[in-house]
Amino acid sequence: MALTPARTMPGVLELLPLDQIAFQRMLDTIRRNYERFGFLPVETPVMEFSEVLLTKTGGETERQVYFVQSTGSLEQGEKPELALRFDLTVPLARYVAEHEHDLSFPFRRYQMQRVYRGERAQRGRFREFYQCDIDVIGKDGLSVRYDAELPAVIYSVFRELNIGAFTIQLNNRKLMRGFFESLGVSDAEQQTLVLREVDKLDKRGADYVRETLTGASFGLAADVAEKILAFVQVRSSSVREAFEQLDALGAGPESMEQGRAELKEVLGLIRDFGVPESHFALNLSIARGLDYYTGTVYETTLNDYPQIGSICSGGRYENLAGQYTKSRLPGVGISIGLTRLYWQLREAGLVSTARSTVDVLVTQMDESRMADYLAVASELRGAGIATEVVLEGGKLARQFKYADRAGIRFVLVLGEDELAKGVVTVKDMRREDQFEVARAELIKTLRVELAQAEIAP
Amino acid sequence: MALTPARTMPGVLELLPLDQIAFQRMLDTIRRNYERFGFLPVETPVMEFSEVLLTKTGGETERQVYFVQSTGSLEQGEKPELALRFDLTVPLARYVAEHEHDLSFPFRRYQMQRVYRGERAQRGRFREFYQCDIDVIGKDGLSVRYDAELPAVIYSVFRELNIGAFTIQLNNRKLMRGFFESLGVSDAEQQTLVLREVDKLDKRGADYVRETLTGASFGLAADVAEKILAFVQVRSSSVREAFEQLDALGAGPESMEQGRAELKEVLGLIRDFGVPESHFALNLSIARGLDYYTGTVYETTLNDYPQIGSICSGGRYENLAGQYTKSRLPGVGISIGLTRLYWQLREAGLVSTARSTVDVLVTQMDESRMADYLAVASELRGAGIATEVVLEGGKLARQFKYADRAGIRFVLVLGEDELAKGVVTVKDMRREDQFEVARAELIKTLRVELAQAEIAP
Repeated sequence: MALTPARTMPGVLELLPLDQIAFQRMLDTIRRNYERFGFLPVETPVMEFSEVLLTKTGGETERQVYFVQSTGSLEQGEKPELALRFDLTVPLARYVAEHEHDLSFPFRRYQMQRVYRGERAQRGRFREFYQCDIDVIGKDGLSVRYDAELPAVIYSVFRELNIGAFTIQLNNRKLMRGFFESLGVSDAEQQTLVLREVDKLDKRGADYVRETLTGASFGLAADVAEKILAFVQVRSSSVREAFEQLDALGAGPESMEQGRAELKEVLGLIRDFGVPESHFALNLSIARGLDYYTGTVYETTLNDYPQIGSICSGGRYENLAGQYTKSRLPGVGISIGLTRLYWQLREAGLVSTARSTVDVLVTQMDESRMADYLAVASELRGAGIATEVVLEGGKLARQFKYADRAGIRFVLVLGEDELAKGVVTVKDMRREDQFEVARAELIKTLRVELAQAEIAP
Repeated sequence: MALTPARTMPGVLELLPLDQIAFQRMLDTIRRNYERFGFLPVETPVMEFSEVLLTKTGGETERQVYFVQSTGSLEQGEKPELALRFDLTVPLARYVAEHEHDLSFPFRRYQMQRVYRGERAQRGRFREFYQCDIDVIGKDGLSVRYDAELPAVIYSVFRELNIGAFTIQLNNRKLMRGFFESLGVSDAEQQTLVLREVDKLDKRGADYVRETLTGASFGLAADVAEKILAFVQVRSSSVREAFEQLDALGAGPESMEQGRAELKEVLGLIRDFGVPESHFALNLSIARGLDYYTGTVYETTLNDYPQIGSICSGGRYENLAGQYTKSRLPGVGISIGLTRLYWQLREAGLVSTARSTVDVLVTQMDESRMADYLAVASELRGAGIATEVVLEGGKLARQFKYADRAGIRFVLVLGEDELAKGVVTVKDMRREDQFEVARAELIKTLRVELAQAEIAP
C-alpha cells in the first residue's frame, strides 16, 4: 500500500508534548485567574448555523470563514448550513440570547476555545488559534465600573504568567469621537479614515501623517492636524498624570465629556482594584474595532517587546446580541489570543520547553520484582506525585536515557540491595546527583524536592 | 432588522455555567489521573487533510464525516480538502508518524478534545463530543504489561469521579479467534457474523441465538453452538476464578494459547497495580472493533446501570500508523466518551449541577466605600479564594438573591458598622446562617469553611 504523507494543514500550531505542557500551563494560569475573579466557564460548539454566525459580519471576516458540510449534504450539492466560529464573541451573543432566561445578570463568563479563520498562510498567522475571553454582560445597563475590573483580571493573569513588564493601555471611543467633533471632523467614516492615517505614525513618522491630513484627500487645517497629532500621542505614567492630560484637552461636546468622565472613573478604579500604576496607562491613540466598541477600549503591550503588538485587547460595546434578541445587552470584554502570544513568546525566547508533567520514573532492574515497582508507584500516585513505571525493561542505562530525553527529573532505582535494606535510590537528573532514602521517607522527600523545583524551576 | 433565531445545531451538548462547571470538574479529574500515571498531553488541530483522515476508513465512518471548506475553495467548487476529526486515534496515528523522530518510545500520550460525527439526530447521540483518550505506543514492540496499566489508570479515574460501582471487563481477541478456530469456525468473516449473533444474547435470549447458529445461515453443529454460548457467558469475580475459567477452556491452537497467556499476565498485573479484584473481570463476550483490535480488549460498565453500556472502551492494536509510515508502531489505548457519559449520568441523576466556582460574593452597601470592597476582594483572591464583587449596586436583598441564584455560597457584608469595627459579616447561603469575623481572621475562616465544603459537598 502506498503511504499517505502524515502532515497537518498549514497555519496550525501543533506542539510536541513538552511544549504542549508549557502551553497548557499558560491556559491553566489564565483559567485560574479568570475563576479567581468570579468568571464562570462557558463552552460552545465549534460549529454554528451559518445564518447565525454571519448576521453581523461582512467583508474580510466572512471571506475567512470555514464552512462545514456533512457527506450527505455535500453529495446533494447543498449550500453549507454550518460554519466554524471565527471568534468567541458571536457565539457568546448567540449563547446569551438563547439562554437569556436561565442566566443571572450581570453575566460574567470566561471561554477558552479555538477559533478558525481562513487566513493567508504566513509565518505567525494562524488558521486555528486559542482565544481566552472574559466578558461581563448586563441586562438593559452595565456600570462602567466593570470596565475597570477587566484590566485588574488581565493584570493578575500576566503577572502570574511571568512574561516580563507589560502595560495595559486604555482609551475611550466617546472621548475620541467627541474630540474629533470638536475639531469639525464629525462624520464617522471620516473619523475612521483619519484614525487609519494616524495609525501610521510609528511607521511613517509625524511629518508624513501631517502632510496627508492637510493634503488634498483630507483637507484639514494645519492646526487641526496638529491637535490630532498631539491628541494621539498622549500617554500617561500615573493616574494623576492621566487626569491632568485628560483635563488639558479642554472642554468639548457632550460625548467627549462623557468619555472623559468614564476614563477617569475607570482609571481610578483600576488603582482601587490593586493594579500598580506602572502597569496601566492612558493611550489616546488606541482605536480598535471602530464600528463595534463604543466606550472604553483596551490594548496590552509588553514593555520590552513593543514589536509584538497588543497581546490582549477588548472594550465596551453597546449591545451584544441585537441580531438575535430585542433585549438590550451591553457588555465589556477582553481577549487573549493565546496561540499567537505563545508563539511570539517562544520566538522571543521568553517561554521554553516545559519540564515534564511526569515527576518520577520508576526503573526496572529485575522483571520478577515488578510487583514491588508497581507498589511504590501506586504509593507515589496516591500522594499526588505523577509517576511512570518502566514496564518494558531493558538496560538501566537506556532507562536513564529515556528519563533524560523525556524531561523526567527523578528516577528511582530499586535493586536487590535497596529492596533488602528497605530504601530507594533516587537519581536527580537535573542536579546529576543521587541519594538513598528510606522507603518510609520517600514521599516526604520527593514532595520537598518537587516543591523546591516549583519555586526555582 | 428581523431577528435571527439564536439556536445551536442539533446533536450538541451546550451547558449552562453551573453544569459546565460540573463537566469541567470531570475533565479535570480525568486529566489529573492521566498525568498522575505519567501520560503526556497532546492536542491536534480539529481539521485534518481529508486524504490523511480517510485512508483507513470506509462505510459508516466516512459517511459521517464533516468536510470543511474555506469561502474561496467553496466558490471555486473544489472538492473539500479538509475534514473534522471523527476520533482521536487517526490524528494520533498521523501525529506519531509525523513527529516520530522527536518522540520518546514507549510514547504515552493523553488527549482530551472534541470529535465530530454526522450522526442521525437522536436523543443521547451527539455530533460533537469529548473523547478523553490514553494510548501507549511502542516502536517495533510493546510489552503486554502496558495492557494492564490502562485499566489501572481507568480505575483511578472512575474511583475519583465517584460515580458508583463499576467493573472493567477484559477479553482477548487472540483467545477468541483461537477458540473459534478450535471449533472449526476459522474464517474471520464468519467469526464476525457469529459474534454479531452472540451479541444479541441479552436482548433475544439463548434460545434465539442457539436456533440461529444451528439454523440454515450458519449451520453449526448443536454442540459447537453450545460451546460458543458457554464461552461468551464466562465472567470472573476474582483473578483466581478467571485463571480457572481460562484453564477450563481446554487446549487450543497457537493463538488461543497466546491469548490465554496474555490475559493471565494482564489480569495478574492489574492486581499488582493495586486495582481491587472487585473492579475488574474476565468477560469473554467482549469483542469490539473486530478488524482493529488484535489482543486485549476492554469495556467498562457501571454495576448499577448496565443499560448505559460501556462507558470506557479500548484495546490493543498491532500497528497504529501503517498508512503513514513503514515503522511498526504497536499500541494499546482506551477512551472515555465524556459528553455521552456526562449526559447519561445526569439523566440517571448521578451528577447534578455543580456549586459555583465563585466562592465569595462581596456585596455593595454604599458605593462610596467601593475601594474597601475591592481591597477585601483583592486580599481574598491573593489567597486563592475566587471572589466576585458587586459593582452595579442595588438593594442588598437583590444582591443576596443574585448570589443564591448563581450558587455562590458565602456572601460578605461590609457596612459602616463592620468597617468601623474592623469586622466582616459572612452569610453562609447554604446553611442559611451568618457570623461576624475579624478582618484579620477572614481568610483563615473562609479557607476552613471552603475546605470543609470540599470534603462534604
